Amino acid sequence: MAQTKQTDDKTRGATGLRPLAFAADPNPWAEGSCRVSQGRTEVLVTATLEERLPPWRRGARAGWVTAEYAMLPRATSERGRRESAAGRPGGRTMEIQRLVGRSLRAVHDFKKMGERLLVVDADVLVADGGTRVASINGASVACALAWRALKSRGVVATDPMEQLLAAVSCARVGDALVIDPDYAQDSAANLDANLVFAEDGALIELQFGAEGQNFSRGLVDEILTLGWSAAAEIFAAQREVLARRDS
Amino acid sequence: MAQTKQTDDKTRGATGLRPLAFAADPNPWAEGSCRVSQGRTEVLVTATLEERLPPWRRGARAGWVTAEYAMLPRATSERGRRESAAGRPGGRTMEIQRLVGRSLRAVHDFKKMGERLLVVDADVLVADGGTRVASINGASVACALAWRALKSRGVVATDPMEQLLAAVSCARVGDALVIDPDYAQDSAANLDANLVFAEDGALIELQFGAEGQNFSRGLVDEILTLGWSAAAEIFAAQREVLARRDS
Amino acid sequence: MAQTKQTDDKTRGATGLRPLAFAADPNPWAEGSCRVSQGRTEVLVTATLEERLPPWRRGARAGWVTAEYAMLPRATSERGRRESAAGRPGGRTMEIQRLVGRSLRAVHDFKKMGERLLVVDADVLVADGGTRVASINGASVACALAWRALKSRGVVATDPMEQLLAAVSCARVGDALVIDPDYAQDSAANLDANLVFAEDGALIELQFGAEGQNFSRGLVDEILTLGWSAAAEIFAAQREVLARRDS
Amino acid sequence: MAQTKQTDDKTRGATGLRPLAFAADPNPWAEGSCRVSQGRTEVLVTATLEERLPPWRRGARAGWVTAEYAMLPRATSERGRRESAAGRPGGRTMEIQRLVGRSLRAVHDFKKMGERLLVVDADVLVADGGTRVASINGASVACALAWRALKSRGVVATDPMEQLLAAVSCARVGDALVIDPDYAQDSAANLDANLVFAEDGALIELQFGAEGQNFSRGLVDEILTLGWSAAAEIFAAQREVLARRDS
Amino acid sequence: MAQTKQTDDKTRGATGLRPLAFAADPNPWAEGSCRVSQGRTEVLVTATLEERLPPWRRGARAGWVTAEYAMLPRATSERGRRESAAGRPGGRTMEIQRLVGRSLRAVHDFKKMGERLLVVDADVLVADGGTRVASINGASVACALAWRALKSRGVVATDPMEQLLAAVSCARVGDALVIDPDYAQDSAANLDANLVFAEDGALIELQFGAEGQNFSRGLVDEILTLGWSAAAEIFAAQREVLARRDS
Amino acid sequence: MAQTKQTDDKTRGATGLRPLAFAADPNPWAEGSCRVSQGRTEVLVTATLEERLPPWRRGARAGWVTAEYAMLPRATSERGRRESAAGRPGGRTMEIQRLVGRSLRAVHDFKKMGERLLVVDADVLVADGGTRVASINGASVACALAWRALKSRGVVATDPMEQLLAAVSCARVGDALVIDPDYAQDSAANLDANLVFAEDGALIELQFGAEGQNFSRGLVDEILTLGWSAAAEIFAAQREVLARRDS
Repeated sequence: MAQTKQTDDKTRGATGLRPLAFAADPNPWAEGSCRVSQGRTEVLVTATLEERLPPWRRGARAGWVTAEYAMLPRATSERGRRESAAGRPGGRTMEIQRLVGRSLRAVHDFKKMGERLLVVDADVLVADGGTRVASINGASVACALAWRALKSRGVVATDPMEQLLAAVSCARVGDALVIDPDYAQDSAANLDANLVFAEDGALIELQFGAEGQNFSRGLVDEILTLGWSAAAEIFAAQREVLARRDS
Repeated sequence: MAQTKQTDDKTRGATGLRPLAFAADPNPWAEGSCRVSQGRTEVLVTATLEERLPPWRRGARAGWVTAEYAMLPRATSERGRRESAAGRPGGRTMEIQRLVGRSLRAVHDFKKMGERLLVVDADVLVADGGTRVASINGASVACALAWRALKSRGVVATDPMEQLLAAVSCARVGDALVIDPDYAQDSAANLDANLVFAEDGALIELQFGAEGQNFSRGLVDEILTLGWSAAAEIFAAQREVLARRDS
Repeated sequence: MAQTKQTDDKTRGATGLRPLAFAADPNPWAEGSCRVSQGRTEVLVTATLEERLPPWRRGARAGWVTAEYAMLPRATSERGRRESAAGRPGGRTMEIQRLVGRSLRAVHDFKKMGERLLVVDADVLVADGGTRVASINGASVACALAWRALKSRGVVATDPMEQLLAAVSCARVGDALVIDPDYAQDSAANLDANLVFAEDGALIELQFGAEGQNFSRGLVDEILTLGWSAAAEIFAAQREVLARRDS
Repeated sequence: MAQTKQTDDKTRGATGLRPLAFAADPNPWAEGSCRVSQGRTEVLVTATLEERLPPWRRGARAGWVTAEYAMLPRATSERGRRESAAGRPGGRTMEIQRLVGRSLRAVHDFKKMGERLLVVDADVLVADGGTRVASINGASVACALAWRALKSRGVVATDPMEQLLAAVSCARVGDALVIDPDYAQDSAANLDANLVFAEDGALIELQFGAEGQNFSRGLVDEILTLGWSAAAEIFAAQREVLARRDS
Repeated sequence: MAQTKQTDDKTRGATGLRPLAFAADPNPWAEGSCRVSQGRTEVLVTATLEERLPPWRRGARAGWVTAEYAMLPRATSERGRRESAAGRPGGRTMEIQRLVGRSLRAVHDFKKMGERLLVVDADVLVADGGTRVASINGASVACALAWRALKSRGVVATDPMEQLLAAVSCARVGDALVIDPDYAQDSAANLDANLVFAEDGALIELQFGAEGQNFSRGLVDEILTLGWSAAAEIFAAQREVLARRDS
Repeated sequence: MAQTKQTDDKTRGATGLRPLAFAADPNPWAEGSCRVSQGRTEVLVTATLEERLPPWRRGARAGWVTAEYAMLPRATSERGRRESAAGRPGGRTMEIQRLVGRSLRAVHDFKKMGERLLVVDADVLVADGGTRVASINGASVACALAWRALKSRGVVATDPMEQLLAAVSCARVGDALVIDPDYAQDSAANLDANLVFAEDGALIELQFGAEGQNFSRGLVDEILTLGWSAAAEIFAAQREVLARRDS
């Protein structure tokens, strides 16, 4: 299989990721928040703790984590219709917010939350590919910040978030694998993969979808290897922004 | 009602699949249709060819394939609210119908369809786990039947469907892997995986999601191996019902 | 008035009904269920008992019966839009489900139900005319099965359903009356009538609508006579399937 | 405000109808309009001619008639939720507007309309039973006025409305039949019937529904007799208001 | 600035208002109601007292007042789509009903209401400009009537409505100011103003909007002067209808 | 990120405005965009030019300007429900976006736009009072930037935007007037005013609403004087960010 790092993009790091930045707590109201950018993609993530649970969860002596995702209408190169005008979130939106929610739940110990709901909102300000992985990466920081703040205010006794999360997208364009593809690369891809890792290296979610060309088990392996090295770079950046916040 | 292929014994087969049956063309109107059952799960799939394309696809000199999925309200052990009453399909519904549509598109040569839309409807009559994979397996047969009928009527010159599809679900319950889990097993699982294969063995979709316990790359490998052997059993059953139809 | 039984349809019975079949309890979850077919029309009906009442009925020391009706998108010769996508059930759907609900309530003694709601779902798998009467006929069996099961489980002390129901449709095509018309006959009709009878011969609902040619009181009489003889055939078939179930 | 025909005394007339009044053309914009009252029930009906057809009717070289029905929120003794807030018209609304539309279509010769749509809006200002029959009676006058105006303006060459319509409701309260019941009587009824007649005495619609007590064929006959005598009174009042308008 | 009273409209009063009429309590169910007309514009307003509060207001030991506004489809010269069919009230509707509600709240002492909700419905029967001000003027009378009735029935001890309300619209057409413009004048206007006054002369709401030509502070002054003299005429008419009702 | 104009000190300026900042073109896709902050309130505004017109405007040989407004769920101190989940924008949203659209249209010469639609999206990232005026102020810059870019690309020959816009909010808290109130001040206010000025000093919109205490004409005068001096400061800041962009 061919060279996997885009040679035409000088700004990509050693693992193939586009320039990555996390800004801590841009929102003054939220328990925790993060503005994350990967290349031109920019997502604002807030974490809100609510003193309620969904009906089916009540009485569980444990909390729950849920996520919502949306794009501003002009986040994209062509303006999209506002989903509140359409009257309902679309299928892509639903699929992404379910992925973000499941991923966050995989690193939470609900017992430590009490009977509370953590609502994560990931709103895409600018979309240039990879908005779902950027949302997860930003949510990891926003939730970590929220729990630190809530612990320091005595709302929780111990931090319910057991690990950070890193999400990596990968596309196959022709024969080449591209980590963290931008919109143009994503549109040209014949395979689209998204991987979510916990900090200890375990996998939380794998989603591989053929887009016009099916794939082999060997390719799955190759992408898992590349993905983990990109995830390690993401974890390092997350820890850095959190450490700066603590100091 | 039409001919059905039924596995002989009531227990799970060698590959772990629950008893699997395909009934060809139960619907007198549809271009092709299939009633599929895996264990108690029962899905009615119809394939409809329409002489139109979605707006964004017009002028492409090629067709498109799309899918819709729904459950009857009492398909489940507790009656669910009808989605037309709720006013919108839920997130799970959207996620599944997007998966079914993508999988079918991966085995279609759109050029051979002409500027037409194939709409696949998968309606779950009884749900006992695995409704998304049963929908894909039934859709594989319904589409194959539709294209045979359409070819024999001269609507298309060559069959646009290049291969059959087989979808397999797998759960990890405790430490054990269960192929084709029923609802009770699925609810107890700590990992949920869905795999879609083409007849030539290539992968079309992989979806692994941790449900309370993360997973390793070794497990991914193990599930891919088990999944492929179950897929082979599914392909055999599909080919048998199609062959009986042809004869 | 002319000959009322379709001479061109050898399969119709003495009363003019198309071939009629009831399958008992095809759904493993529902308290009672029935798959009914009249000619090619096929409806799946489930009866669900819920331990709740609509808000306006609470505290009544009595139950309630309600019905929902829908068609699968490809139940019809041209695929129709899914009502969950349209965001609301259409007027025809509403009219039919109100008719089914009213008819069922006419044969229930609510006091014997306790403060519970019986929800009947009639989902049309294949439509070839007469789906509303088939829904009522299937619901009669599904409810009867449900109450027998619930009584044997001790949920109710006495069966709240006092009689079976039979519904008959009749069309005037040109000058001829057709009992249980199929879709083609229905489309050509200048008068459309639906009659719902209780087992004791009393009327529960009458709906006559002119479709391009008004009608006389004499015709009302004539249709009532034909309808009752068809209803008697339907009751016999219902009793047979219930008796077989009991034995 | 325009001329009105008012029955002379405050009590029910010989045929059992409540005091009945039609006001011609209360709306300055509509092609034709009528404010009708039966007892305290008051409905404002407008008839609008639009130079368009529903998509399925295009190219038919003929017109179409459709109706919409609604109640103001405080038309009833308890305020109801506004249907625009609920986001959709309810089942009762749909059922009634379908009845009004079908009834009007039964007396129209579509060929004489040209490719145009007549939209009838029946809005209930005050509801005290019988709103559906009052809507039909008012619509009969509003449409007649509209076509006279349109004919005099040369929009149509001949009047497409062949006859007037009269609608009568009847309830059985205990053992007594009540023509044109008010809300209190309707609520106490064990049988609810609505009849729509053409001016020549032919029937257009019959709807009989048991409400807790089933009914016999003899009763159908009895109600048809009473209904026709009430209809004759309604036709007389309609003809009077139209005649006064002409003079 | 030019002559402000329309010279071509002989029916306008000294203050420039079109003929103004209030009918007390046309609705037999509502606590209070009013049919108001200004020129051809005609609005039916009902005031309903409900023994409930919106959730956010509960426990306030005080009431609340809210308003809803709608137009019948053929209130306008071209028929508009029914908002229940559109599935949601439009922006203009929302803006007007918020204005009506705020204006009414400005003259209510919520403590005197008890924990109750006054719901005002303003339904436009005929629209010929100025429907929002006519709605407020009619609501002033409807609420005054409601509170008198409720006080006489002992529901409230003292009247919670402290003053009447008068609303005046003003348009600049070319250089001329027109009080209470009709639809044609409103459509030609380059400035649209709505003023709501309390009986003591204080202002409750001011809304000035340029429509193609901006405006000066001097013009604001001029319109306030004209508006107050029209408001005085409106208050006189309101007091007259209320006095007649009392006597 | 792009250049920003930031007022020098953390306290309110001489005119009473909170610290005000405009960032030019934070969005890489939009024709023009601006991130504006007033105190903690922060709004992202994009201007999109589309080669289409609303249906009613077609054939006008002129363009149109429209606006949409929304708040991110956690823009506020308590998380609000996402409007796409609610299925429709609320009344407050509609009222604000109509105000933004009308204000922008007042400074556009539609003929110079060609048959195109300018869509302005104002999305509130953080809300601390004054989001509607911040949206207008940011939209003024975003549109100015868009037209400069479009003119330099030759899409329009002359800039259709004739003047900048400045919007100022004012509250009366107790007896004191507060320019540009934050959320806490706004909540305590007994009068709420919003003023929109064109650069030449003319008024475009005035909205005064009593919140529990009515107001006099003298107060209107006083607020217009204060508002204009704040508007002058806003225009200066807008011109500075545009000038820096040009250089």
